[in-house]
Amino acid sequence: MSAAFPTGRPGARFGAARPGPVVLGQNQYGKAENRVVKITREGATHHIKDLNVSVALSGDMEEVHLSGGNAHVLPTDTIKNTVFAFAKKHGIESAEQFGIHLARHFVTSQEPIKTARIRIEEYTWERIETSDGNSRFVGADEVKHSFVRSGQEVRTTQIAYDGTSWQVVSGLKDLTVLNSTNSEFWGYIKDKYTTLQEAYDRILATEVHARWRYHWSSDEDRMPQWDRCYAQTRKHLLQAFAETYSLSLQQTLYQMGSRVIDSRQDVDEIRLSLPNMHHSLVDLEPFGLANDSADGAVYYAADRPYGLIEATILRDGATQAIPVDLTNL
Amino acid sequence: MSAAFPTGRPGARFGAARPGPVVLGQNQYGKAENRVVKITREGATHHIKDLNVSVALSGDMEEVHLSGGNAHVLPTDTIKNTVFAFAKKHGIESAEQFGIHLARHFVTSQEPIKTARIRIEEYTWERIETSDGNSRFVGADEVKHSFVRSGQEVRTTQIAYDGTSWQVVSGLKDLTVLNSTNSEFWGYIKDKYTTLQEAYDRILATEVHARWRYHWSSDEDRMPQWDRCYAQTRKHLLQAFAETYSLSLQQTLYQMGSRVIDSRQDVDEIRLSLPNMHHSLVDLEPFGLANDSADGAVYYAADRPYGLIEATILRDGATQAIPVDLTNL
Amino acid sequence: MSAAFPTGRPGARFGAARPGPVVLGQNQYGKAENRVVKITREGATHHIKDLNVSVALSGDMEEVHLSGGNAHVLPTDTIKNTVFAFAKKHGIESAEQFGIHLARHFVTSQEPIKTARIRIEEYTWERIETSDGNSRFVGADEVKHSFVRSGQEVRTTQIAYDGTSWQVVSGLKDLTVLNSTNSEFWGYIKDKYTTLQEAYDRILATEVHARWRYHWSSDEDRMPQWDRCYAQTRKHLLQAFAETYSLSLQQTLYQMGSRVIDSRQDVDEIRLSLPNMHHSLVDLEPFGLANDSADGAVYYAADRPYGLIEATILRDGATQAIPVDLTNL
Amino acid sequence: MSAAFPTGRPGARFGAARPGPVVLGQNQYGKAENRVVKITREGATHHIKDLNVSVALSGDMEEVHLSGGNAHVLPTDTIKNTVFAFAKKHGIESAEQFGIHLARHFVTSQEPIKTARIRIEEYTWERIETSDGNSRFVGADEVKHSFVRSGQEVRTTQIAYDGTSWQVVSGLKDLTVLNSTNSEFWGYIKDKYTTLQEAYDRILATEVHARWRYHWSSDEDRMPQWDRCYAQTRKHLLQAFAETYSLSLQQTLYQMGSRVIDSRQDVDEIRLSLPNMHHSLVDLEPFGLANDSADGAVYYAADRPYGLIEATILRDGATQAIPVDLTNL
Repeated sequence: MSAAFPTGRPGARFGAARPGPVVLGQNQYGKAENRVVKITREGATHHIKDLNVSVALSGDMEEVHLSGGNAHVLPTDTIKNTVFAFAKKHGIESAEQFGIHLARHFVTSQEPIKTARIRIEEYTWERIETSDGNSRFVGADEVKHSFVRSGQEVRTTQIAYDGTSWQVVSGLKDLTVLNSTNSEFWGYIKDKYTTLQEAYDRILATEVHARWRYHWSSDEDRMPQWDRCYAQTRKHLLQAFAETYSLSLQQTLYQMGSRVIDSRQDVDEIRLSLPNMHHSLVDLEPFGLANDSADGAVYYAADRPYGLIEATILRDGATQAIPVDLTNL
Repeated sequence: MSAAFPTGRPGARFGAARPGPVVLGQNQYGKAENRVVKITREGATHHIKDLNVSVALSGDMEEVHLSGGNAHVLPTDTIKNTVFAFAKKHGIESAEQFGIHLARHFVTSQEPIKTARIRIEEYTWERIETSDGNSRFVGADEVKHSFVRSGQEVRTTQIAYDGTSWQVVSGLKDLTVLNSTNSEFWGYIKDKYTTLQEAYDRILATEVHARWRYHWSSDEDRMPQWDRCYAQTRKHLLQAFAETYSLSLQQTLYQMGSRVIDSRQDVDEIRLSLPNMHHSLVDLEPFGLANDSADGAVYYAADRPYGLIEATILRDGATQAIPVDLTNL
Repeated sequence: MSAAFPTGRPGARFGAARPGPVVLGQNQYGKAENRVVKITREGATHHIKDLNVSVALSGDMEEVHLSGGNAHVLPTDTIKNTVFAFAKKHGIESAEQFGIHLARHFVTSQEPIKTARIRIEEYTWERIETSDGNSRFVGADEVKHSFVRSGQEVRTTQIAYDGTSWQVVSGLKDLTVLNSTNSEFWGYIKDKYTTLQEAYDRILATEVHARWRYHWSSDEDRMPQWDRCYAQTRKHLLQAFAETYSLSLQQTLYQMGSRVIDSRQDVDEIRLSLPNMHHSLVDLEPFGLANDSADGAVYYAADRPYGLIEATILRDGATQAIPVDLTNL
Repeated sequence: MSAAFPTGRPGARFGAARPGPVVLGQNQYGKAENRVVKITREGATHHIKDLNVSVALSGDMEEVHLSGGNAHVLPTDTIKNTVFAFAKKHGIESAEQFGIHLARHFVTSQEPIKTARIRIEEYTWERIETSDGNSRFVGADEVKHSFVRSGQEVRTTQIAYDGTSWQVVSGLKDLTVLNSTNSEFWGYIKDKYTTLQEAYDRILATEVHARWRYHWSSDEDRMPQWDRCYAQTRKHLLQAFAETYSLSLQQTLYQMGSRVIDSRQDVDEIRLSLPNMHHSLVDLEPFGLANDSADGAVYYAADRPYGLIEATILRDGATQAIPVDLTNL
């Protein structure tokens, strides 16, 4: 038992002794979902950063698992305090930069902590437009401290640090897109369980869930411009989706991913998880109505089940490092 | 037992006889959450309407409750079919107009059905911008059939019809807004359970849930321009929120509601339900850090509990008709 | 402007003056979703009450809406404090009793507050069974402080008080039930949009959402035994669902409601909202497989759309008081 | 281009040619969330299996990504059909057994498909008790076809098959448990961001998310009794939680995991993800009320942030194979 282990408190009893041939594997702990909002004021013009920060730490943690001795444990409450204090001390330049500050702190300031993984979700706000020239209301001059939440995709990032090298995997989720034409699906395998009809003009809709890994991994190298990279990658994903004439969602996915790898030299790998949000042509023949896609059709948007297409696209020579599962289903 | 009641099918047994002094009160039935997507094509330019339609019908329905006789029941499956068929037949000019078509059909086409209530949620889509002049990708000319879901507020409407007069209550929900200054809270009641400190510069954030009732109620009168009314009402709500120097969320609510009544002659009544999404200044003093709102502060965004402020604002002389509860909590 | 209204603070500006013909209608405010957990210890045996308490107060509140003057406002933060303090001071005998304590306090202790509405959700916990006679683990004697959350229905109540009389509407939600036979549906209206086939042996499944109003309304009268009433009403609902041979969900609903009114003299009225969770027989004929319900069939459980059947059942002579909408769709 | 690739259909255009140095990495596709309900009848006694089945297939899929050629693609619609047909053909003995049937089918019946991963969620139903001896209602004899959904944990399994060997990882999620005493937390690291007070008698609550890997991997070996294994593992997790005197959630986690490894010879590895659902003692001193845990205290149940404790426990010599992430936060 480690000398640092606190003993002798009256009332402290310990759990069962560790039974036979059992070992502790990978473990991590931290504080999840710290909801940090940082306002920056430039005179009357305010800026907002709205993050959900989750921290997971690993290291020399056998003791606390085996006997409950907490001498190596930085409490998750302290982790939370650190997140909020750093938001004030260092500001939030970008989600990635903020995560790097935090990860470096945890790994370098506490000896038992060997690695840190910071996950951040960012919610985007737009300014509310005011100042109609002809408004007759009091206060209708331009307002620079009022925001409406964008509600489109959630931006994400994950920073991993082991004291030596960095891994930054950024991404987005819940970005719902739809092409109302230029999508076909035919020429597939037919077996005894096939009933699907081939389609030559269908709706293709999905909720983009993407994660991309940056090449940057060392303090020696120049960091990417995180916000610009994000904006560009998002634009490439949207445009590749829109501009691809699709014969399968796999093909569209590949076009989206390869355009990012091709266009962003700072990105080595991207994983996309694309649910096929089925929109079925409704059969209106029983009611004497044609319902052809060419004429502008009516579709039924289904919830479940849905196709789920997932793939990693990477730069030749890069090692695949983003985990396969972006979803649990 | 009504003559229309189907009897004699082998295997049909009936439930318990109606016990003593029990009566049937208000009742309604229908098909909820029909997810209708309608694409309209103008050459290569497509338009999309994406609705979630719920229908509730009432009328002469004693029989089906008391004995299970379905002679007066239009099946909810038929209701669903009707929704999809009408989307093709009549198109979807606006959510309100579509609901009016449906309500009129159900009440006028089936004798036992006396009233119809149609509730619609509408999801908004924006076009994906393509055609960078300098794109080197195939197909990068302007695309007019690709959409990204807005993700901001959900537009709602409720159409009620009894064969004679109409009630249209439109609205929106989940529109999240935030003022990072120009909000105070002080001068309130202090009692033995008071610990709150007065605030002279706080964040005010809420998720706007609004429903407004149109004056229009008769086929004799000219209908409002539903889409334009919606856009204007939304704009007034946002701008009143942004432009009000707030001493309480109640005051902000009243400014939002009264600006709508004052600006939109076609609206007689509006109900607002505004959760006070608390953003608390984090106490960073233990870490030697000041955290004053004037310098750009760090806030903790809390989930629960939250203040909930609700009120109806109406035109003098109008009768309050929107139900009090827009939420169940 | 009320003399109690605080003026003259530097920096305080007020919103726009109230424009023309606008009036304030029904309004209420409070703190929603206070998550209170109360442990009671009887030696080593512990008991748990786990509530989500929402308070809405109304009264003399014109001032705060029109000018932001808070002199009549008991802050929602104080409301929260009161909820927690009362849980300690009075304990939580039942959700209903706790709500009655709170409502009486708010209405009687603050002059501007005229009515209080307390809504409570209760989550049920069961004991974890331990003490296998033959366990070889340390501490494996009977444990009386360990619980697992039931996860079945959420129990609800709503207490309304205006200083004179009480209204108690209790209920439950999210209680999912299914009959795998003894359900038919036929003999309904056929029109041009009908495609549904009649069914003589179908699954009937629903998620019970019920609210019942107690007769009790005066401090003069003896209160019901709230916990026993709840348990009995729940049992009647479940058994009536199970024991009814159903020709329509309306009939089943009526049997459920009327059994409660018939069996519980303390209940005057019940409202049921029953989604028809459709389970469709899957067509397996293309694969050479019969799929008849009589042989034990395979069903597809659909999410949307769903039938939604709602009705109030009441004691003859009682006035209908439970609002029509238990859902927003 | 593969000879199997369908060309020449009028109107088919293809996306951009694959740009430079981009390669396709791991990829998989399938139909997610097939909601299958299977009723089995033994005379008047019915049994129910209620599953949510997700299928992911991998194999020789370069073509469909690069050019949209679907010759190697078994459509996700066919996958769905197969799931429903197999539920009828083979029944659903257990989630694991059903997944094994499906995985074997996909891998062995289609040459391009090399591996299959089947994920299943199972929802549990209990019988509704009827037959009060003294009921006066019609039909109140014992009913054997009426169910109420348990609502406690969701049972999960994942079957992976590559044509040669099997990996079965079963588990559960959303099982919420709470100890109202026998939990302490002290002796931890203090740094400049520490404000937490040590606790000697606190509530310990968590929502158990567990996945365990069975030793079984070959058709040569005897399969575990899946349902019995599940029930026993669940019991061990609950009892270890209840019976551990906890000095940290890590210690409790280790006790839960090691008891499973120690008790179930068929399980080689278990991963637990335990959010620390914080219940804070409410400070009631300002109101003159003591709130000590020893006397039965009032707690505030917080939503976010929360501690998150995760670890793998495995049999000595086993290889860690369950992925680290059971959550995305």
